[in-house]
Amino acid sequence: MNWAVIMAGGYGERFWPMSRRKQPKQLLPIVGDRTMIQQTVARLETVFDPARMMVVTNREQAPLVRKQLPRVRNVIAEPMGRNTAPCIGLAASMIHQRDPDAVLAVLPADSYISDVAGYRRVVRDALELARREDVLVTIGIRPNAPHTGYGYIHLGGELSAKTPTRFWKAQRFVEKPDLKTAKEFLESGDYRWNAGMFVWSARSIIGAFEKYQPEMWKQIGKIKDARSLKRIYPGLEKISIDYAIMEKADNVVVANGEFDWDDVGDWPAVERHYAKDAQGNVARGPFAAINSNNCVVVSGGKHLVALVGVNDLVIVHTPDATLVCHKSEAQRVREIPKQLAGQAQYKKLL
Amino acid sequence: MNWAVIMAGGYGERFWPMSRRKQPKQLLPIVGDRTMIQQTVARLETVFDPARMMVVTNREQAPLVRKQLPRVRNVIAEPMGRNTAPCIGLAASMIHQRDPDAVLAVLPADSYISDVAGYRRVVRDALELARREDVLVTIGIRPNAPHTGYGYIHLGGELSAKTPTRFWKAQRFVEKPDLKTAKEFLESGDYRWNAGMFVWSARSIIGAFEKYQPEMWKQIGKIKDARSLKRIYPGLEKISIDYAIMEKADNVVVANGEFDWDDVGDWPAVERHYAKDAQGNVARGPFAAINSNNCVVVSGGKHLVALVGVNDLVIVHTPDATLVCHKSEAQRVREIPKQLAGQAQYKKLL
Repeated sequence: MNWAVIMAGGYGERFWPMSRRKQPKQLLPIVGDRTMIQQTVARLETVFDPARMMVVTNREQAPLVRKQLPRVRNVIAEPMGRNTAPCIGLAASMIHQRDPDAVLAVLPADSYISDVAGYRRVVRDALELARREDVLVTIGIRPNAPHTGYGYIHLGGELSAKTPTRFWKAQRFVEKPDLKTAKEFLESGDYRWNAGMFVWSARSIIGAFEKYQPEMWKQIGKIKDARSLKRIYPGLEKISIDYAIMEKADNVVVANGEFDWDDVGDWPAVERHYAKDAQGNVARGPFAAINSNNCVVVSGGKHLVALVGVNDLVIVHTPDATLVCHKSEAQRVREIPKQLAGQAQYKKLL
Repeated sequence: MNWAVIMAGGYGERFWPMSRRKQPKQLLPIVGDRTMIQQTVARLETVFDPARMMVVTNREQAPLVRKQLPRVRNVIAEPMGRNTAPCIGLAASMIHQRDPDAVLAVLPADSYISDVAGYRRVVRDALELARREDVLVTIGIRPNAPHTGYGYIHLGGELSAKTPTRFWKAQRFVEKPDLKTAKEFLESGDYRWNAGMFVWSARSIIGAFEKYQPEMWKQIGKIKDARSLKRIYPGLEKISIDYAIMEKADNVVVANGEFDWDDVGDWPAVERHYAKDAQGNVARGPFAAINSNNCVVVSGGKHLVALVGVNDLVIVHTPDATLVCHKSEAQRVREIPKQLAGQAQYKKLL
């Protein structure tokens, strides 16, 4: 059967102050009216039976995940975050024990995709390919801009798939490029964004773990229950699936993602999904402005945010904390909760 | 006897969102821990008996004025604001009816003065002079910077007063100058800031009203009770005491104010009265910052304001509205409540 594994272990510190350890980005309606993980599950509901959806999260977030996704019964809580390779290995192991013929789509909980039909078609076609062949499919998004914040995959020879979706052998994974290189990638048409969305059979990914991460796989094999999970998991290497497997394996295939995709990586990304007023401002919540342009304002409820003579700012108001950030420095928002950590009076703000 | 008349009729829209129609700047602790009017009364308590202090405010603010100043029993509520000339005429008329020999110090409610001893000495010396002579004293502040936001008074010949405070005839009132002129004024030593602080006998100011504003004075003379106040006051000309009397009279005298004085005219002015951190930020309330400089943060209670990558901003957080304003545009803050006026959902924010 086909299974969806939704990875939801992040802390989303770049979305502070709305994002907190117990309610990070994926459990918030950063873009849209439902939370990111609710949107992810809704996108997958016509492809997977909710009984075969698994969410891997952590112990702090598991209660809220269960509350937000009452129909998803497989919610696994990592004792601590170990990046994507241990997370994916654990999920594959658990599903394989129940369903040795399982094919898995492994997907992040917090992406934004508006072309749901296009997305579903690629996932379906990749599931079909992965059921037939011993491949590790990564869904690559066709770039629409020379983005320097994403990794890229260089396409190799095309597979002769009969599906609407095109597939190529992966030739090379490329780290975040500089702007010049990103422009070349965009123009060539031979590169796709690495979106962290994977499709493979349980057998194929387990085979890859055995080959490229034998020690990790041996440890994962010993996890039988909550007690052994708690004992063994924290000792696993903290490593991404890209480094651990994908960049090493020779059976990686890229599925062509033509649908729009946005990992909504920081606050300024929010503005791409909302209408701007005549001054280029995007406001979610009550808002007033004098001589202010190209700002993003997010306010939870009735609280008014008023701007006078400012440009290119992100302002996020929550009941107990407000962020004022220049758009160009949005990556550094995560330094705020780090700075507050250890100060007793700010414990609730983390 | 000596009387203090405290003018407290402003709406302080430049201090929005903290300042509201019912609780404007003078009724808020903009600088210091007590409200501006409480500080004003405290400064005057060793000079005037609270029984001879009169606050002139308006009907919206009178309840809070009475609450904040329980010892001040003479709180007069204007039916509507008519600028300083009608306000001063009304107070002079009321006090003269009770005490024909009264000498009045007429002072704004919302200035900040830290050299209280220096201030009291000038007020005392001016009261003494005004009791002896038929003069209209204005307390002029010696400039310490070429400020272009204040009016100036050009000093004439010095009086032979025996008091520690020096007095000069006023030669000329000058409107807000340009920077070049302000620098010349500062260097010459012959100019003082017009601070809107006056001392005169009831007789002298009434004489001046009779001479320069006979029609207004005739109307004020008809005000006998709350009913006639409500009927007559709104019809009085809306005009400042400077235009109505001071610039016309030939018996204006300038008292030399050497004490520090700040009318705290807008949010950026607040930073002059608080210690800055190493990045030049001033914070009243919980605060965190990454790569941010020369900002002013005002937060009412436990709410944290966090800055990332911003400079020269004023951020004011209140429970129902937050202002983010560039320091250079602080004068335009008053446009926000004007913009909100008439929108039912924002009624409480005015």
